[in-house]
Amino acid sequence: MTEAQRATVPVEVRYAETDSMGIVHHANYLVWLELSRTKLCADAGHHYADIERTGVRLTVTGTSVRYRQPARYGDIVEVSAWIHRLGSRGMQFAYEVHCNAVLLATGRTDHVWIDAESRPCRAPDDLRAMFARVAGGAE
Amino acid sequence: MTEAQRATVPVEVRYAETDSMGIVHHANYLVWLELSRTKLCADAGHHYADIERTGVRLTVTGTSVRYRQPARYGDIVEVSAWIHRLGSRGMQFAYEVHCNAVLLATGRTDHVWIDAESRPCRAPDDLRAMFARVAGGAE
Amino acid sequence: MTEAQRATVPVEVRYAETDSMGIVHHANYLVWLELSRTKLCADAGHHYADIERTGVRLTVTGTSVRYRQPARYGDIVEVSAWIHRLGSRGMQFAYEVHCNAVLLATGRTDHVWIDAESRPCRAPDDLRAMFARVAGGAE
Amino acid sequence: MTEAQRATVPVEVRYAETDSMGIVHHANYLVWLELSRTKLCADAGHHYADIERTGVRLTVTGTSVRYRQPARYGDIVEVSAWIHRLGSRGMQFAYEVHCNAVLLATGRTDHVWIDAESRPCRAPDDLRAMFARVAGGAE
Repeated sequence: MTEAQRATVPVEVRYAETDSMGIVHHANYLVWLELSRTKLCADAGHHYADIERTGVRLTVTGTSVRYRQPARYGDIVEVSAWIHRLGSRGMQFAYEVHCNAVLLATGRTDHVWIDAESRPCRAPDDLRAMFARVAGGAE
Repeated sequence: MTEAQRATVPVEVRYAETDSMGIVHHANYLVWLELSRTKLCADAGHHYADIERTGVRLTVTGTSVRYRQPARYGDIVEVSAWIHRLGSRGMQFAYEVHCNAVLLATGRTDHVWIDAESRPCRAPDDLRAMFARVAGGAE
Repeated sequence: MTEAQRATVPVEVRYAETDSMGIVHHANYLVWLELSRTKLCADAGHHYADIERTGVRLTVTGTSVRYRQPARYGDIVEVSAWIHRLGSRGMQFAYEVHCNAVLLATGRTDHVWIDAESRPCRAPDDLRAMFARVAGGAE
Repeated sequence: MTEAQRATVPVEVRYAETDSMGIVHHANYLVWLELSRTKLCADAGHHYADIERTGVRLTVTGTSVRYRQPARYGDIVEVSAWIHRLGSRGMQFAYEVHCNAVLLATGRTDHVWIDAESRPCRAPDDLRAMFARVAGGAE
């Protein structure tokens, strides 16, 4: 069984992302996870913007994040995504956020494929194959 | 000449809107101005969501904000909008943000009407008339 | 065993909260949950801004959200929070988001108390008692 | 007279930054401008996070943006900042946002120096000198 392929993006903390505790507000991590998910799609072969243009979309049905250490303005964090579960109608991504080799947060997001009328649907074969190539042994 | 009609909305400062200076990050004021602009449209007769469904949109071409005093988590600010200039192809809104009768900020936003193909267009007659009713002597 | 007290806030969907799918971006739900958590604190007896001024803070250690139905610009959603678990060093809140009596999303957030030096600590007795009053039988 | 030094940062459009018009919501441009301003400070010699640690801050007193062309998810925009006016108590930055050599937006932000008690103050000599080096003939 091969390991799932990881996509990692550096993200510079924005001043607007901090809150009055002096740390990054927890909601912004979901936006960061999305950046690494976008990178994983692009690495796999198609920018997610191009996938949307084909008429299907990977809608978000669930998110969870564990926050271990805060990030601050001035930090450059590394956000990694990989496929944790892959099905015919949806998938789950897993994530890690690091800063200077320290694990700041972990996360999971659940997704289902929907068609142009926003109805759940099966993933088109080519996209299913594309994600299978980067999913390793995830199932 | 009559005065332009004002729409005012109370906005509770969100923790996520503060930054590590302990005050509301300046970008959020544009989001607040939009809330009062939405209220002005609704007061005038049509929710902006309904206007969009007719196929025209009022795109933003310019914004300016002066920041006088900061807002903080726990504050409830009052955001007011009114029409400052009204034309056949666009309009300018003016704004004030108060907290406990203190003026925190003033703003202006410029807009042009665009059609479903994102081309500049004239405002539909009924919308032009609707905004004229709340614009007072603005022209 | 009594039920936990619920705090509910109406939230008008902001245009800035939507994304190019035409629905509210999933990260904004965490910001909405925080609004209802703020309301629950205030209902219990202390605005969270006042709690912070005493030197302790309730930092976020985990979040999870299930998204069932989308929210759109023009919607006014109702966000409810209650205490699901209450401990001496932290607590878990549970949430529901409704729109027109339809359940849009559910969520949970985990928190631990930290002191002025950002070290985990026990909740001050008065705050512990305050939250216990609204927690019902949660433990 | 020398030209002001420019700092340019590439910014990948985030899905969360788009709105239901399918384009980047106008408030996000202020966040992008801040990224290029941060870069200009760092290029000049001090990360803005380090400047804040010395006890002074460059608070935002005004912003204005002209929007010419929209940005979309999938775009990578280039955001440039330079000093347009430099004074002993504040400064004005100017900005341009491009995508694929097309000018999307221009902006200005006004700032004044404040001390640890949030009172307006003169810039410390070393920071004044630092910004003068990158300001070219701006005054």
